[in-house]
Amino acid sequence: MIKKRLFTPGPVSAYPPSLQAALDANIHHRTSDFKEILTSVIDALRRIFGEPAEMFLLTSSGSGAMEAAVTNFFSPGEEVLIASCGKFGERWIELANKFQLKATVLKFPYGDPVNPDDVRKALRENKNLRAVFVQACESSTAVQNDMDELTRVVRDTESILIADAVTGLGTMSISVKDGIDVMVSGSQKALMIPPGLAMIGISEKAWKRVEASTAPRFYFDLRAAKKSWDQGQTPFTPATSLILSLRESLRAIEESGFQNLIRITENRARATRAGLNAIGLEIFAKRPANAMTGVVAPGGDADKITSRLKQKFGLQVAGGQGELKGKIFRISHMGYIDHFDTLGVLSALELTLLELGHKVELGKSLVEFQKVYAELK
Amino acid sequence: MIKKRLFTPGPVSAYPPSLQAALDANIHHRTSDFKEILTSVIDALRRIFGEPAEMFLLTSSGSGAMEAAVTNFFSPGEEVLIASCGKFGERWIELANKFQLKATVLKFPYGDPVNPDDVRKALRENKNLRAVFVQACESSTAVQNDMDELTRVVRDTESILIADAVTGLGTMSISVKDGIDVMVSGSQKALMIPPGLAMIGISEKAWKRVEASTAPRFYFDLRAAKKSWDQGQTPFTPATSLILSLRESLRAIEESGFQNLIRITENRARATRAGLNAIGLEIFAKRPANAMTGVVAPGGDADKITSRLKQKFGLQVAGGQGELKGKIFRISHMGYIDHFDTLGVLSALELTLLELGHKVELGKSLVEFQKVYAELK
Repeated sequence: MIKKRLFTPGPVSAYPPSLQAALDANIHHRTSDFKEILTSVIDALRRIFGEPAEMFLLTSSGSGAMEAAVTNFFSPGEEVLIASCGKFGERWIELANKFQLKATVLKFPYGDPVNPDDVRKALRENKNLRAVFVQACESSTAVQNDMDELTRVVRDTESILIADAVTGLGTMSISVKDGIDVMVSGSQKALMIPPGLAMIGISEKAWKRVEASTAPRFYFDLRAAKKSWDQGQTPFTPATSLILSLRESLRAIEESGFQNLIRITENRARATRAGLNAIGLEIFAKRPANAMTGVVAPGGDADKITSRLKQKFGLQVAGGQGELKGKIFRISHMGYIDHFDTLGVLSALELTLLELGHKVELGKSLVEFQKVYAELK
Repeated sequence: MIKKRLFTPGPVSAYPPSLQAALDANIHHRTSDFKEILTSVIDALRRIFGEPAEMFLLTSSGSGAMEAAVTNFFSPGEEVLIASCGKFGERWIELANKFQLKATVLKFPYGDPVNPDDVRKALRENKNLRAVFVQACESSTAVQNDMDELTRVVRDTESILIADAVTGLGTMSISVKDGIDVMVSGSQKALMIPPGLAMIGISEKAWKRVEASTAPRFYFDLRAAKKSWDQGQTPFTPATSLILSLRESLRAIEESGFQNLIRITENRARATRAGLNAIGLEIFAKRPANAMTGVVAPGGDADKITSRLKQKFGLQVAGGQGELKGKIFRISHMGYIDHFDTLGVLSALELTLLELGHKVELGKSLVEFQKVYAELK
């Protein structure tokens, strides 16, 4: 009977009307009814991605769209730059290797953001670099990169900027219009539906490459997708029920304002950090994300903290990944949650730390959270 | 207010408790709770696929699993045989070309099945053939191939038999145990849930090839999938809500018996064909499938028939694909439907044909359907 709340950085707590919408799944994908649904979803995605030249919806998790970003714009042997600051940056490296791109890698320590100056320098030194790969938000370390500066650095070069925005979309101000050439996202994050759909928005500059690219691809071939889209269809049977859910989420998000969603998420993250700091906890990221907050676990107790939060309080936060396992835990600010839910996480965290023998001044994180929230617009 | 019924050969009418199960989607995929769910789903899939050496669930449509079947068992330049008898056979050809396999193609006319003797001959003539690709059921023509004979033909050779069983699973007696080495299926067919999940079951003989294969792959890389499965996980975020639905469907199917599902589908197809023949309609397939029936549209009226069935009676059947567009229509026997639903299709079809000026003896298809059904076990 413990009430369960999901604070993992994807899947997130889904928007109930979106889940309900999936019940209406007895629909065939090659009908005018479904064409109308798909078109409205793509139109809404175009708006929130910032009017990309091409916008596609894929039936896969976000990693499928990451593969599409690697296989549709290059040919084997071409040179690219990967600016990696965590586990998902390493996924770009793995993908580039698998599909035989010649990758120059700038690796930043876990917790640090990508340094745009290093990217600028690399682009100046090697004019053959065809792209810069980056995470808008690196979910493994809860770091948010300086996308404003990174878009400035890449904009006037021959390179295209490819951003994993799986947790960046809807949590920070980024868009194709603002200079991201290939922007990838997923359904189970700020869009508040279950996993299974991925999105990719593409600029004019990047789309020009698609026909020339000789990398092998089929399921994620955007040339085939383009041909089908132009008739209001998908090349393969899409996840119809999830698309119905997505339509509902996009409708709700646009009704209350997409910029509001970003602002609210940012505020929630800021207030959370203030609360955590007030009880002496350290934020792991040097440049903290809005999408989620990574917290250094006192005494390396991350596993104990996350399991107690779940078992005693029904709160599911995420541990660290890879080398950060046991060291940090992450609290999502995405999904169908409000600031009272997040207040609950701070409350449970204080009680948990106390139980584990750490010193905590009870209520202090709540007071600070409250203060910050009151000041925010 | 017209009651709507789905008779398309995927997506099909979903099992309501499976749709409901997806509402419980606030679950994180890297938890012991989800591991338990995933394990039970994989175990059930293993049983209905016929105890494959490896069994994987992919977040994609069936075509994604078809790509996995091409990229995980071969290296560029290797020779394979493709026995194609329709649009989905042509998908194997396209895939083989994209991933640089050297394909020998046996092409059979639309409506015909694959001739196993031709496959036998081809295998004898070329000992370099590493695989035979086929459709268990070719959904575009509603043809069911002779998989018993095809497994016999391939079994004692060096080739592996790769079958697209997207509409074959749960509608005909096929399994890895019975000699299919790589068997691919999807969620939106006999398993009665929405699209978005694909499955691939693999024999010992085929799995041995996986490590040696040098074809480029990432999202559909089964080596990575294997590593994750061994820990009860997926390599990428899976479509959690659809997996909850699938668990519910598999539970219901196994409770009433997987062999029963096949038998009932076969009976429904047989009674439907008898009904159609009784009113002078021609079955398109020379070897008709259980999964769906393809009907030659009298007077080339397929589009008129399908649109009237939908608009006037709420019955969504499928038209023909590619060169069969306008010529045939297809009635699915998969999904959460019973024989009364199918009786309704025959009733509506009689009325529609009459309206379109064709001669029909009213009720005759229903009488014949009824007679056949009464005799069946």
